[in-house]
Amino acid sequence: MESMIYRRKVNYYETDQMSIVHHSNYIRYFEEARLEMLDQLDLNYARMEQNGLIIPVLFVDCKYLQPLLYGDTFDLHLRITKYDGIKMELSYEIYKEDGKVLCTTGCSGHCFLDKEMKPVRMKREYPEIYQKLKALVQAE
Amino acid sequence: MESMIYRRKVNYYETDQMSIVHHSNYIRYFEEARLEMLDQLDLNYARMEQNGLIIPVLFVDCKYLQPLLYGDTFDLHLRITKYDGIKMELSYEIYKEDGKVLCTTGCSGHCFLDKEMKPVRMKREYPEIYQKLKALVQAE
Amino acid sequence: MESMIYRRKVNYYETDQMSIVHHSNYIRYFEEARLEMLDQLDLNYARMEQNGLIIPVLFVDCKYLQPLLYGDTFDLHLRITKYDGIKMELSYEIYKEDGKVLCTTGCSGHCFLDKEMKPVRMKREYPEIYQKLKALVQAE
Amino acid sequence: MESMIYRRKVNYYETDQMSIVHHSNYIRYFEEARLEMLDQLDLNYARMEQNGLIIPVLFVDCKYLQPLLYGDTFDLHLRITKYDGIKMELSYEIYKEDGKVLCTTGCSGHCFLDKEMKPVRMKREYPEIYQKLKALVQAE
Repeated sequence: MESMIYRRKVNYYETDQMSIVHHSNYIRYFEEARLEMLDQLDLNYARMEQNGLIIPVLFVDCKYLQPLLYGDTFDLHLRITKYDGIKMELSYEIYKEDGKVLCTTGCSGHCFLDKEMKPVRMKREYPEIYQKLKALVQAE
Repeated sequence: MESMIYRRKVNYYETDQMSIVHHSNYIRYFEEARLEMLDQLDLNYARMEQNGLIIPVLFVDCKYLQPLLYGDTFDLHLRITKYDGIKMELSYEIYKEDGKVLCTTGCSGHCFLDKEMKPVRMKREYPEIYQKLKALVQAE
Repeated sequence: MESMIYRRKVNYYETDQMSIVHHSNYIRYFEEARLEMLDQLDLNYARMEQNGLIIPVLFVDCKYLQPLLYGDTFDLHLRITKYDGIKMELSYEIYKEDGKVLCTTGCSGHCFLDKEMKPVRMKREYPEIYQKLKALVQAE
Repeated sequence: MESMIYRRKVNYYETDQMSIVHHSNYIRYFEEARLEMLDQLDLNYARMEQNGLIIPVLFVDCKYLQPLLYGDTFDLHLRITKYDGIKMELSYEIYKEDGKVLCTTGCSGHCFLDKEMKPVRMKREYPEIYQKLKALVQAE
């Protein structure tokens, strides 16, 4: 499967006085893309949370290669690299100038919890979601 | 009563590429000072929310006179200007350079709601909180 | 002229533990819409800043009527209400559910400065930009 | 040398609708502590930037073990783990409840650039800063 691509413009308030996007905001871009991916799989996260399934972040890593600037539009390429029904890992690549410049790479890890913060076995309890996510896994 | 004063340094990530604090962050400074004031009155807001009392924001106004920069320490002077047990209004003044430069003025309005988002009559339902806040009101 | 409309989804990280969009983020939405409007007028603000024209915020007011939630898509209606070549004021209305629910109203004031932070007379120094903005003014 | 400790309260606007601090904000806490450490070494970063020395972020990693909540006060323990005058790495540990609960671990990498974004040899060009940072290095 192709990686999913999330495109948007940099917001002015995301810059800092180094005149580049503040490094914390890429972590937010990763989340935006991740939740948009779920949405496109018809796995709306707002609805999932209401139904008692939450997907917290266990770790996040980010490498900053070239800065994004205000005025830039970026493409965030997103892939699920691991998924076993208990945990999930994703990788991220942010490009600008229509894919010519790689700005940022990153990855994040997640688990699946119920409202009591107990682990959920996705395969048994949410088989439909399990299948959709499983079908997207791409080894790195 | 004297106005309460909340002091802190500007954080780097609060600047934008104009090399000043982004204007949205002053709204966050107002909230920090407001909740710190409640804390000092022994009206911890974390505990109030757990007990089912929430204080949403109805409006906020802010005037930007002189910018705060990274490296600045500011003093936020805070007063309750109106309080009738149903609604509350506060005013804010942010100074830098030990009170010599007035950077920002503002005000905010609030109500008191229970978990079902219904208005709470503070005087009857939370008489102790009502009295503490009432005692702080200063006409502008 | 019709008001300009800026549409986007709420981001998860824009919510707070009241499970609504934090009130400071509407100020950021106003900025997003304002800069997008300039972009659509072919008055790209990234380029304007590079050329030495900056448009700081003098004041911002915001009223919170109904909360935006994660999962919501909103329409931000934007109008220039005053413009004399020295100062500019805009008004904002945020709707959700395809215009059925008015969530937020607001306004902001701006001036035009050069790199030395001196006021710019737009009519004389940037006649093209002056005309474009002037043509958009709508009394409230 | 002991690790430096940076203490502060969680701000309300740093929470999200999961009722915990949003994971992107820990990256901001790391920066706050890092710049406060420089300040305590009399290496004020605002002044360093004005003098043309910038310290961008090359990478950041963060593991989320236990969430910080609104109402929590945290201690961020900070150490320089590598420093050779060209690059610098730091490690971070965030504790709550007076050191009893480890919430977050992380690390970040940095380089030293001049205004033209060219690498600076700290030992030769800023020997005083070089010595101060070198003296703080602790192997992990």
